Amino acid sequence: MGLVGGGPGSFIGRIHRIAAELDGEAKLVCGAFSSDAQRSREAGAAYQVDPARAYPSYAKMFEAELALPADRRMDFVAVVTPNHVHYEPARLALEHGFHVVVDKPLCFSLNEARDLQAAVERTGGVLAVTYTYSGYPLIKEARALIQGGRIGGVRKIYVEYPQGWLATDLEGGGQKQASWRTDPTRSGAGGAIGDIGTHAAHLAEYVSGLRITQIAAMLNTFVPGRQLDDDASMLLRFDNGASGVLVATQVAAGEENNLSLRIYGELGSIEWRHADPNSLVLRSLNAPLQILRTGSPYLGEAATRSTRTPPGHPEGYVEAFANIYAAFYRSVRAHADGAKFDPRSYDFPGINDGVRGMAFIEAAIRSAWSQQKWTEFV
Amino acid sequence: MGLVGGGPGSFIGRIHRIAAELDGEAKLVCGAFSSDAQRSREAGAAYQVDPARAYPSYAKMFEAELALPADRRMDFVAVVTPNHVHYEPARLALEHGFHVVVDKPLCFSLNEARDLQAAVERTGGVLAVTYTYSGYPLIKEARALIQGGRIGGVRKIYVEYPQGWLATDLEGGGQKQASWRTDPTRSGAGGAIGDIGTHAAHLAEYVSGLRITQIAAMLNTFVPGRQLDDDASMLLRFDNGASGVLVATQVAAGEENNLSLRIYGELGSIEWRHADPNSLVLRSLNAPLQILRTGSPYLGEAATRSTRTPPGHPEGYVEAFANIYAAFYRSVRAHADGAKFDPRSYDFPGINDGVRGMAFIEAAIRSAWSQQKWTEFV
Amino acid sequence: MGLVGGGPGSFIGRIHRIAAELDGEAKLVCGAFSSDAQRSREAGAAYQVDPARAYPSYAKMFEAELALPADRRMDFVAVVTPNHVHYEPARLALEHGFHVVVDKPLCFSLNEARDLQAAVERTGGVLAVTYTYSGYPLIKEARALIQGGRIGGVRKIYVEYPQGWLATDLEGGGQKQASWRTDPTRSGAGGAIGDIGTHAAHLAEYVSGLRITQIAAMLNTFVPGRQLDDDASMLLRFDNGASGVLVATQVAAGEENNLSLRIYGELGSIEWRHADPNSLVLRSLNAPLQILRTGSPYLGEAATRSTRTPPGHPEGYVEAFANIYAAFYRSVRAHADGAKFDPRSYDFPGINDGVRGMAFIEAAIRSAWSQQKWTEFV
Amino acid sequence: MGLVGGGPGSFIGRIHRIAAELDGEAKLVCGAFSSDAQRSREAGAAYQVDPARAYPSYAKMFEAELALPADRRMDFVAVVTPNHVHYEPARLALEHGFHVVVDKPLCFSLNEARDLQAAVERTGGVLAVTYTYSGYPLIKEARALIQGGRIGGVRKIYVEYPQGWLATDLEGGGQKQASWRTDPTRSGAGGAIGDIGTHAAHLAEYVSGLRITQIAAMLNTFVPGRQLDDDASMLLRFDNGASGVLVATQVAAGEENNLSLRIYGELGSIEWRHADPNSLVLRSLNAPLQILRTGSPYLGEAATRSTRTPPGHPEGYVEAFANIYAAFYRSVRAHADGAKFDPRSYDFPGINDGVRGMAFIEAAIRSAWSQQKWTEFV
Repeated sequence: MGLVGGGPGSFIGRIHRIAAELDGEAKLVCGAFSSDAQRSREAGAAYQVDPARAYPSYAKMFEAELALPADRRMDFVAVVTPNHVHYEPARLALEHGFHVVVDKPLCFSLNEARDLQAAVERTGGVLAVTYTYSGYPLIKEARALIQGGRIGGVRKIYVEYPQGWLATDLEGGGQKQASWRTDPTRSGAGGAIGDIGTHAAHLAEYVSGLRITQIAAMLNTFVPGRQLDDDASMLLRFDNGASGVLVATQVAAGEENNLSLRIYGELGSIEWRHADPNSLVLRSLNAPLQILRTGSPYLGEAATRSTRTPPGHPEGYVEAFANIYAAFYRSVRAHADGAKFDPRSYDFPGINDGVRGMAFIEAAIRSAWSQQKWTEFV
Repeated sequence: MGLVGGGPGSFIGRIHRIAAELDGEAKLVCGAFSSDAQRSREAGAAYQVDPARAYPSYAKMFEAELALPADRRMDFVAVVTPNHVHYEPARLALEHGFHVVVDKPLCFSLNEARDLQAAVERTGGVLAVTYTYSGYPLIKEARALIQGGRIGGVRKIYVEYPQGWLATDLEGGGQKQASWRTDPTRSGAGGAIGDIGTHAAHLAEYVSGLRITQIAAMLNTFVPGRQLDDDASMLLRFDNGASGVLVATQVAAGEENNLSLRIYGELGSIEWRHADPNSLVLRSLNAPLQILRTGSPYLGEAATRSTRTPPGHPEGYVEAFANIYAAFYRSVRAHADGAKFDPRSYDFPGINDGVRGMAFIEAAIRSAWSQQKWTEFV
Repeated sequence: MGLVGGGPGSFIGRIHRIAAELDGEAKLVCGAFSSDAQRSREAGAAYQVDPARAYPSYAKMFEAELALPADRRMDFVAVVTPNHVHYEPARLALEHGFHVVVDKPLCFSLNEARDLQAAVERTGGVLAVTYTYSGYPLIKEARALIQGGRIGGVRKIYVEYPQGWLATDLEGGGQKQASWRTDPTRSGAGGAIGDIGTHAAHLAEYVSGLRITQIAAMLNTFVPGRQLDDDASMLLRFDNGASGVLVATQVAAGEENNLSLRIYGELGSIEWRHADPNSLVLRSLNAPLQILRTGSPYLGEAATRSTRTPPGHPEGYVEAFANIYAAFYRSVRAHADGAKFDPRSYDFPGINDGVRGMAFIEAAIRSAWSQQKWTEFV
Repeated sequence: MGLVGGGPGSFIGRIHRIAAELDGEAKLVCGAFSSDAQRSREAGAAYQVDPARAYPSYAKMFEAELALPADRRMDFVAVVTPNHVHYEPARLALEHGFHVVVDKPLCFSLNEARDLQAAVERTGGVLAVTYTYSGYPLIKEARALIQGGRIGGVRKIYVEYPQGWLATDLEGGGQKQASWRTDPTRSGAGGAIGDIGTHAAHLAEYVSGLRITQIAAMLNTFVPGRQLDDDASMLLRFDNGASGVLVATQVAAGEENNLSLRIYGELGSIEWRHADPNSLVLRSLNAPLQILRTGSPYLGEAATRSTRTPPGHPEGYVEAFANIYAAFYRSVRAHADGAKFDPRSYDFPGINDGVRGMAFIEAAIRSAWSQQKWTEFV
């Protein structure tokens, strides 16, 4: 495994390393941790990587690693830079024969996304996008329950992702994470809608098995001087006739990362909250509410395979992240083996999810500017 | 106190009686409990009312009571019939000099509502509409905190009222509550939007002190054959520039009465859920979340005056209901005394709230049919 | 209904009136609200009682009421004075042919309790003790589930009642409720153990259907200068071989009234918390946890008969209290009718529960002073 | 890092590896994973360890590793076998100059524990015992708050650890984890009291900074045929005059791993539950309850240093475990450097905690058999 980005001050780089290594299969061996060669070296030392493999640029990394014997070279790269530096390293990696994990959203624009999709098809590489929340065991259980008809036909989907960390002008004070996320030249056209709205949309579609077909969006910028939206709400229509609401806001003062999902069907409903990720609420008509818990013997196969500890040992964010890496890495090895294998092992967000996320951002912005109530999203 | 409606099978009639009598001030003494004279007599016996005062019609009741000596006659009437029988008894009561409590929504249509408003102005009677949730002590605390600037300028309001009791075709089986609520000739033009959407809208405006100015609504009917909406979602804009989302659905399978309200300001936010009405969550930037509890010494005056027990003795729905009655009844007595008195005692939903609720229903329906994203609501 | 006590400053007198009147059957008509005649008159006015029936003493009240025609006289009296003034008015009431509700604990000492038990037997009067928590619908459901074998044979019972209101020397400041409760001449030999420990013990036995047979108790007094225990913990053994723990403390700084009960059997367990009284947690071996909710259609008869609102309308303390009054009052009327009737209607804490509570206080104190681990409680 | 134990079917071996490697510092390089050479090889392959370093016994491992160059040899060993195979490998490791992590409880008996304590002192090695729960960030915050006087002098401590996994005769069915834990020849004299009671006792003392001085214990065996206790309750007295209750049971049907801790002081109280480890409830006299959350900026240094993600990204069991490893490993490196360093880095459970745990087990058993209420624990 190699990293693009993840240098000093990066929270997400460290998470990618932990997640990739958690099951003792992948190992971080190199990186272009910063576009500043000195900072890349320092980061490499902190990661305890061979100094010779702390590269000054991703281009150099791909060349140098390719020159190594196959059993020593990195087998995939994780791209954890700001959005405007996703496309180029991902494409280049694929073209050098490396598989790729990209932090969400996939890239800077829908055009870039489609180019990257073409590159995946052209090279046959494996690409994952870390829509992390889809890695939680009980999210997989919810998906399986709905696929199995447990709540009947889906009618309503409410997904919301309130955060409060951008309630004030953090970027004005130079906070690094806030700065690039609120800068349209680095983040892309979407602010909150891109950073967390895409998580919400992905989760809603992943769990329900449905596709959003129409949206009626409102985007706002509450903090004066900010250049991108910091707040989004929209009405949703799905391909089976279900409807819903999506909320993604970064100005919900006092909120942490309170992603939640509720799906109501004809016979019952599920509710999952990121603040308590090891509980899944299952409601039914005229029966007591049930709470399903991570690691329990009554859960289905997908949830069970995604769990590392017995019930009652709280699992969290890094395990969810690691579940995406584990599925990705199984695919990478299958690719290396040239073998077919159990398609359930490919249960991770891939290039199509990434492209759809970029299309969602653009549709939301289009809708927000439209006087028409409904905007198509296909 | 007299009742119009509230005969056998009525849940809400019993609640009005309990709420009105809870503080030992009002007393149910008569009623036109049913339009069937025999059923009215039976109900009167169940309520332990003097058989002579169990009237066969509200018109007869108003006449007969007016003929009694002032110290024996009822002083106000509570109208707890289906919506299409609100306007006429309420107007007639006012014209006979009786004060009125009307169950929500105020009546059948905005036109009726405006006529009733005129009747109130003409007669000088006191009229309350039981938007019950505004009677909870911590709702009053939330309102006071926001008025006091505790969370800064309001930016976002999320209010939702999911119920599941109409997830199936209950009216097809003849269930009485379901039958009239899904019948446009008895309920009016709104289904879920009228029955519970108006609660949600009232609560959002009451607590925030803001007014909704624009809505973008989607109404759905999920249960086949049903004639009114059973599901509503809408985006909101408020007069201070805040925005929000309102959800009111009766097909959220497995939900009870899970009204919740979240209001986010520049400095913090409040969250209140009907399922745990004695807790108010107060979040602030960079400080621990706080949970304020009913009856606690640190609460403000409005919350404190609305509480009957020390902290830790759960209060609920009937106490909230009784708080509306208590404020209404103080007004009735003040009216009787001809005296001015503390305007804070008039803290109950009145005719203007009732009219606004009817206007909200009609605006929501207008918006739902419109291709334009935003519909004005004034 | 008449009151003994409940004058100015009494919280519990007001609750007794609300609870007794909630279902529109009983009505407060007289009282000896204070041993000070002037204060009794003032309280009577506040309760809107006929001034002639605001008596200067309970002895006078019993005589005067007995002299009234049967259809005008009070039919029962509620004794809500401090513990040292329970026995005498209760006994006297019974001897005058009035039924009695006594606030818990029954009286001042086990000797008094036994005398009162004899009086009940001698007079044939009906006597209730307001162990309020046994009136909650889901407590009745828990009891029914256990009786029905839902959790198998009971093994463990944990009951605790932490309060924080006596964490400081309130009585030193003259607070009325604190003063008599910490005064052995008014409260009796037990402090926390009597005031709330008896609630906990009653609830454990009522729900489990078991009887405590041995205790190993520790009583503490944490606030300097206080004359009675303000904190109690004990190990328990039950008559079926189950064991458990009981905690009752009034120095748990920051706690309200957080009574909770957990009972573990061979097949599952129940958990109920007073802070969320409308939820009952039911756990089973190898199955998802369930949450049963007040008012739901799947509940048993005892719970259903104890509920006044549909699911999702929070019920609380006054309804639980009213359930005890309702059952008591059914017994009073049955007594008046000379008729037998459904024994399930007699589901309220009576004289035997009251005597057992007094025995529990004395056993706990005996155990606390003993060097032996186990003290018998029969 | 080397492992003793952790072969096929071991949950805890895998957790030790993840926790040790989480921060990218330690790396599992060898193991005596099973006393069966073939199974040890298989486990080594699963862990992706060099086949030559999957040893058939710990004795061979220590010799072989010692023979390697210092920069290639393991630097410490984690002992994750059943209790009766803790002492010997730990002592031998120390004598070969390896540092040691031992899973709790420290060993088989207090005598063994004291011998091991002598070995630590003799060899100067670093030894950690994985009392995991002390590694949670908010546990460290609770400790810091109490040390800082935030809740005043401590009066009451309630700690409980209910599990339900041994509610039935799992060992009769041959379940591996159940078999050795209920076998006195492998587990030692304590069942539940040793397996989880020691966790609870350690946590209570660690957070409060107090020491238990007297206990009044009841041990039970509920499942027929079981040879060790599966249930424990006890009253506690602490060295500052505080008192408390400890519960540890493995027959609480339906419970997972619901460790919880509440500590009440003169001014307030803290509450922490393992089921929601990223929330710490802080109550104060006459002020709203607060909930402190992992990763928040207002937390103290010890909590902050123990956190890897921003607030709202749930951390769990492996991170808590990793925090113990991180502190242990800092000590190992300090030892290697011969340097003194910040004593706060040594914040992990060590040999003294391990010895105290074994003494606790023996005191609990002594008390359970005693007719005297109180047994000294020093």
